[in-house]
Amino acid sequence: MTSRFDRDTAVTDLADGRYAAALTPNWNIGERPNGGYLLAVVARAMGQASTRPDPLSVTGHFLSPPLPGPAVVEVERIRSGRAHATLAARLQAGGQERLRALGVFGALGAAGSVTAVAAAPPDLPPVEECVRGTAELPGGVHVSLAEQFDTRYDPRTAGWVRGQPSGRAEVGAWVRFADGREPDLWCLPLVVDALPPSVFGLGLAGWVPTLELTVHLRAHPAPGWLRVWVRTRFLMGGYLEEDAEVWDADGVLVGMSRQLALAPAPRRD
Amino acid sequence: MTSRFDRDTAVTDLADGRYAAALTPNWNIGERPNGGYLLAVVARAMGQASTRPDPLSVTGHFLSPPLPGPAVVEVERIRSGRAHATLAARLQAGGQERLRALGVFGALGAAGSVTAVAAAPPDLPPVEECVRGTAELPGGVHVSLAEQFDTRYDPRTAGWVRGQPSGRAEVGAWVRFADGREPDLWCLPLVVDALPPSVFGLGLAGWVPTLELTVHLRAHPAPGWLRVWVRTRFLMGGYLEEDAEVWDADGVLVGMSRQLALAPAPRRD
Repeated sequence: MTSRFDRDTAVTDLADGRYAAALTPNWNIGERPNGGYLLAVVARAMGQASTRPDPLSVTGHFLSPPLPGPAVVEVERIRSGRAHATLAARLQAGGQERLRALGVFGALGAAGSVTAVAAAPPDLPPVEECVRGTAELPGGVHVSLAEQFDTRYDPRTAGWVRGQPSGRAEVGAWVRFADGREPDLWCLPLVVDALPPSVFGLGLAGWVPTLELTVHLRAHPAPGWLRVWVRTRFLMGGYLEEDAEVWDADGVLVGMSRQLALAPAPRRD
Repeated sequence: MTSRFDRDTAVTDLADGRYAAALTPNWNIGERPNGGYLLAVVARAMGQASTRPDPLSVTGHFLSPPLPGPAVVEVERIRSGRAHATLAARLQAGGQERLRALGVFGALGAAGSVTAVAAAPPDLPPVEECVRGTAELPGGVHVSLAEQFDTRYDPRTAGWVRGQPSGRAEVGAWVRFADGREPDLWCLPLVVDALPPSVFGLGLAGWVPTLELTVHLRAHPAPGWLRVWVRTRFLMGGYLEEDAEVWDADGVLVGMSRQLALAPAPRRD
């Protein structure tokens, strides 16, 4: 049985570097597909064209949000080297380019053996003491994306749900797919963008449109719960960065991301 | 009088989105130009083609390092919107594509007024208590790049220079151009990549080739010294990330970057 994520990010080779995709409404925020979902679809298409197996770094620039529906990913092989392959891609949907991406692929863990880690997994309370996520955002926006995950928020970072924001732009949670699909590299571009904006913790609300999202994929995740921690340190001049870390059940950092987004503005959906 | 940085990153419009550049040997590590210098040249060309004034986020994928010499930057305007312009660029030199980039441009500070900052500038000792940089790396590699900056290292992060690494993958320093040029947005892609690799603090040495470098440009720097702090938290599986923050003389974060690089390998230069 194929998982919903695998079905909804599958691409079909149309030859000449073109791949057909079907953007489903299962990963929406309001009426529009989540940016991380779009980047996951594009990464899948790049992976089909790549001569190297593992995505290492993928950057997406979001041009305008499509509606669910058919899409085509056009992939360009920029360089296919012995160790690394670099690719560009554009996602076309609704008659427009929606997303431009660059990615580099390689083989994780194949090179070098020196390991030095100066960080620890986020200190989340046990799953059973955490707060279940909801698909309804304050303001009446339905988030179908949230239905695809079993998400258990650290209660210290989920106060905004009941109108008591923590005052800190941080959100932490245990995350796994609701249908039991185990995590892998391919889901990480989606997972890093799947929690509500961390600035909700400051009592802000509204859309936080992503301009650019870069995901580093650092290790193949072990099966089980992921721990995700998202924070914004600099909200200024109309923009904010949002950093996410994803740790697996073995306590290994498997992905990290940073996005540049617009500061919250009134809802348009 | 034009500064060396401005001369060495100047581009000439050749029409049809093509810009001529001259890569000088002034920003080398060994025989090859520094990656941040190449990205600064590409950002300049993108800026010429952009309908919006300020670079906000620029990502470069490094394909192979050129030698100093003539180069051409080919810029594609992907989208020119009311608030933001998105561009792609490729740097051609020595008969090959060397760097592919994406960037989004806008107007810093023009949108929104909410400010929330949850971080402080790096706690560097006063300039006069810091250690001057050198253009000679351990191992006999000459870094002409280092001659273009007045760099004063936090002594707690510079022990590796005299064979006493700190054991932490962090490097902090006061930085300004040696010729007195004041900082602006355009120099930040270079500045974030201008200090020695932070993993030298772990006692490692050798090349740390950058695969991908993303720079966020967050505020126009005030005149005076910049404070730069660079660190690596995850060295594993043959790769590392390196994060840099750049703060200006007013204590404002003006730029932040993250790169994915190969773990140190024996020198090839």
